[in-house]
Parts: sequence; structure tokens; C-alpha cells
Amino acid sequence: MSKISVETFNAIIASELPFAEATGVYLRSIERGRAEMVLPYSQRLIRPGGTIAGPFMMLLADVCMYAVVLSEIGEIKLAVTTSLNINFVRKPANTELVGIGSVIKMGKRLAVLEVSVYSNEDIVAHATGTYSIPPHPAG
Amino acid sequence: MSKISVETFNAIIASELPFAEATGVYLRSIERGRAEMVLPYSQRLIRPGGTIAGPFMMLLADVCMYAVVLSEIGEIKLAVTTSLNINFVRKPANTELVGIGSVIKMGKRLAVLEVSVYSNEDIVAHATGTYSIPPHPAG
Amino acid sequence: MSKISVETFNAIIASELPFAEATGVYLRSIERGRAEMVLPYSQRLIRPGGTIAGPFMMLLADVCMYAVVLSEIGEIKLAVTTSLNINFVRKPANTELVGIGSVIKMGKRLAVLEVSVYSNEDIVAHATGTYSIPPHPAG
Amino acid sequence: MSKISVETFNAIIASELPFAEATGVYLRSIERGRAEMVLPYSQRLIRPGGTIAGPFMMLLADVCMYAVVLSEIGEIKLAVTTSLNINFVRKPANTELVGIGSVIKMGKRLAVLEVSVYSNEDIVAHATGTYSIPPHPAG
Repeated sequence: MSKISVETFNAIIASELPFAEATGVYLRSIERGRAEMVLPYSQRLIRPGGTIAGPFMMLLADVCMYAVVLSEIGEIKLAVTTSLNINFVRKPANTELVGIGSVIKMGKRLAVLEVSVYSNEDIVAHATGTYSIPPHPAG
Repeated sequence: MSKISVETFNAIIASELPFAEATGVYLRSIERGRAEMVLPYSQRLIRPGGTIAGPFMMLLADVCMYAVVLSEIGEIKLAVTTSLNINFVRKPANTELVGIGSVIKMGKRLAVLEVSVYSNEDIVAHATGTYSIPPHPAG
Repeated sequence: MSKISVETFNAIIASELPFAEATGVYLRSIERGRAEMVLPYSQRLIRPGGTIAGPFMMLLADVCMYAVVLSEIGEIKLAVTTSLNINFVRKPANTELVGIGSVIKMGKRLAVLEVSVYSNEDIVAHATGTYSIPPHPAG
Repeated sequence: MSKISVETFNAIIASELPFAEATGVYLRSIERGRAEMVLPYSQRLIRPGGTIAGPFMMLLADVCMYAVVLSEIGEIKLAVTTSLNINFVRKPANTELVGIGSVIKMGKRLAVLEVSVYSNEDIVAHATGTYSIPPHPAG
């Protein structure tokens, strides 16, 4: 079972990640090791062509990985991204984007995650990333 | 000599990249194959700890690569990022960030770029990325 | 159904990839969009500590991606790797390694693949990569 | 000044990295934070088309990063690669390959490196990677 709820994670976004909250990104569902996040379509986030810009797909991927990490370790806010690799594979439609994140490897000090980003039901980007996890009692 | 000026690139940000303009990011100097961009420090961009969040370092890196590409090919707006890899190597200070971008390889259809991101004078992140360049007369 | 058989792919290794054949790597099973390859344990491939060295995990991942690509397009040997990203997540045991490759996105000109590398049943590395696909009649 | 000599590093290859020695790869010059390695051209390393195969460019990049790390910390053999990202940017010629490695960031526990791979004087690949450095007295 996830060690963090949808409500708690969305409250973390609201209180501690003002940059993420400003985009409207939110967690839709979570289970242990798997998270689904939504980035609503907005004129403020687009690039020439009218689709959501690459940096916001990266933001969606990064925050989605963070949710996956917290689903495994609970509310330890000091987990930080140490690397991220993303391939943009198709132009998205002018719609919201959905990120599906999952665990590749959950270690005590390092987590490796992946996120697929969808527009309608087509994959538009795929990211892998690593998170450094601080020493913690609940480890 | 750069095929685009600082003024023209900053005008592109203002008119076509609303998401970038909202962060305050701007080009400070450019020469052919090399660009220097600044992301001003702002409360809206921070993460727990008070430093600029990772996704905005990625945004800085991506837009800086775009400036480097345009310095080589001129004002061809349809160049798009196809991949980006970033390592976060040190916690930045609570200050503006500076991205220094340069060319690794400039091909007719694909460009490979790198960007080092600095906080004060310390490197805090390093990114490499690829851009797809549409066929164009000036190639 | 896969557009290439296990036997045909292993024959390509034997006749055209001498560097791969020298390691003993072979395809164990294939279906469309999914390949399973084995790298036998050998003293010639080890690093200090006695485990198979990182570069051979990269070789396993790269050849496995190639098998996945050919399972989709058939025997078109000129497909080439354009990028590869790998995270080493755990020290393997002193045993053979198994790579499980699958498609992230199969486009006409670009394929995005991923490979998980296992030692016993533990994941030890995860790679994503891109392949450029030459124009071909069967596309 | 480099904390390891060309002779010592090549002796490490000969005694502890049999897989690398088998390729003929050797260190040509080193200074603190910068290494130049050569991978001789050989029929055993080629792919269809006659050029050195991608996995051996990755091997060259990885071993070159290792030399750069040891130039900074001395003969500490347990430093290990934790990630590697490579872009293949041009088909090499049928010649030896030269890797030029340098430090992006040298931390106490993590090093970030980059390597450019050349064929004749053209860049053919570019890699970045991270190395984990074990705790050590000389840190």
C-alpha cells in the first residue's frame, strides 16, 4: 500500500512546491511504487504549435517520480533528483498530459524511476531518473 | 558570428515562449555556438530549502540550448528538443542561475548541445541534449 | 509475431557482429517488441570484484535493443544506435546476465527502447536507447 | 598534477581489466582532471560497415572516465560507474578512436565526467557519466 495518499501529496504540492502548483499539476492516483499525475492543458504552458512545452513535460515527469518515491518511503521531503533523462518521441496533442510513474529499483539510498507521458492515449515522452534518499528512521 | 542577436532571441521568448517569459529567463550574451542565459531568483520557482527547483534548471538548460541552435541556423523556430539528460551535482545557493551553452556537434538535421548551470561560480548542474532541425533553405 | 527468429538473429551475431559473438552473447527468445538475451559469465569480461564489467552490460543492452528493433522491422541491418542511457543500480552476482528488452515507441524513423538487466532475479542495470531506422520498403 | 601516471594506469588495465586489455585500449596522456585514451582499430571490434561498434565507444568512454577519476583521487580501484549517457553523432572512419575525458564536477562521493570521442579529428560520440567514489583516507 502506498505510504502517502493522493490528498497528502497534493497538499505537499500546494504548500511546498509553488512552481508545480502554478502549473496545475496534480496527483490522480497512487499505489505503492506507481503514480499517475495530470498536467492540465493551459495557454501559459505552450510552445509554438500550441502544445505543452518540453520543460513542463520534464516537470510532470520529475514531480511524478517524486510521488513514486514518497509512495515507497512516506513523507520525507528531502529526497532530491540527482539525474533525469528524457526522450521526446512524438508531438503531443493540444490536451492535458498524463504521467504514469513506476519504480525500476528502490534502494535505501538511491531510487531509480521511470515515467511515461501520454497525450490522449499516445506516448509522447519517456523519462528515467534517479533520486537520492536521505538516511531516515523508517528506511 | 551568431546568426541571431540577443535582442531577437529575447523577443522570441517574449512573443512565443510564454512559459519561459513567465520565469524571467533571458539571454545575456551570444556568439556563434555559445550562449549565456540567466534565470533570476524568484520565490515562485523554489523548492523546499529555498533554492530554484530542478525543473527550472531543466527549463534554463533547454532554452539555452535553443539559443545555441539559433546562433548557428538563425531564426528557425521549429527546431525541437528530442532528448535531454541532466545531472544535478550540487545544491545551488539562493541566487540567480546562469547557463552556459555550447555546441558539441552541429549537423544538418541534428544538433548536440551541452549546458553547464552555475550558481555564484559553482557548477550545480550539467545537461546534454539533442535538437532536431527541420530542413531549411539556409542549411 | 516477431519479424525475425531467434535463429536468424543469432546468425546475424555470428556473421556480422564479431565483437558480440566473442562475448558469447545470444538471443534466447523473441516476440514482436520484446527480446530476451543472455550474456554468459566469463573470466574475460570481469572487473575487480569478479563481476561482469559495465561496458559488457552496455553491450548486452545495446544488442538486445537491436533484437527488439529487428523484431519490429525484420532483417534491416543498417539500423543504428543514436543514443544510450544506462543506470547501474546494483552490483551483479558472479553469474550470467539476462537482458529483457522492450519497445517504448516504435516510429517509422526512430525507435525508443528499454532494457532491464538481471543477475539471478535482481535488476542490476536499466538502459534506454534510441535507434535510427533507415527508410525501407517494408516500413 | 595527476595522482596517477600513464604507466600505472596502463598497468591497472593489464592486471585488472582483462576485458579492456583485450581491446588494446591504452592511456596516452594524463594530467589532473584530463585524460586521453586510444582505442586501436581492429577487425574484432567492428560492426557492419567496418567501423568500431558502439559498445566499444562506450567502453572507451567508460575507461577514459575511470582514468580521469584516478587522476584526481589516485589509485583507488573501487570507484564504480553509476550511470552513463552517450550520443552517437557521426559514423566514425575505419581508424583508431581517441577519447578525451575531463571533469565536470569532482565531489567527495560522486564525480561527474565527460568524454568526447574522435575519429581522425571529427567528434563521433559524446558521453557523460557519474562515478561513485568510496570513502578513502586521501579524500
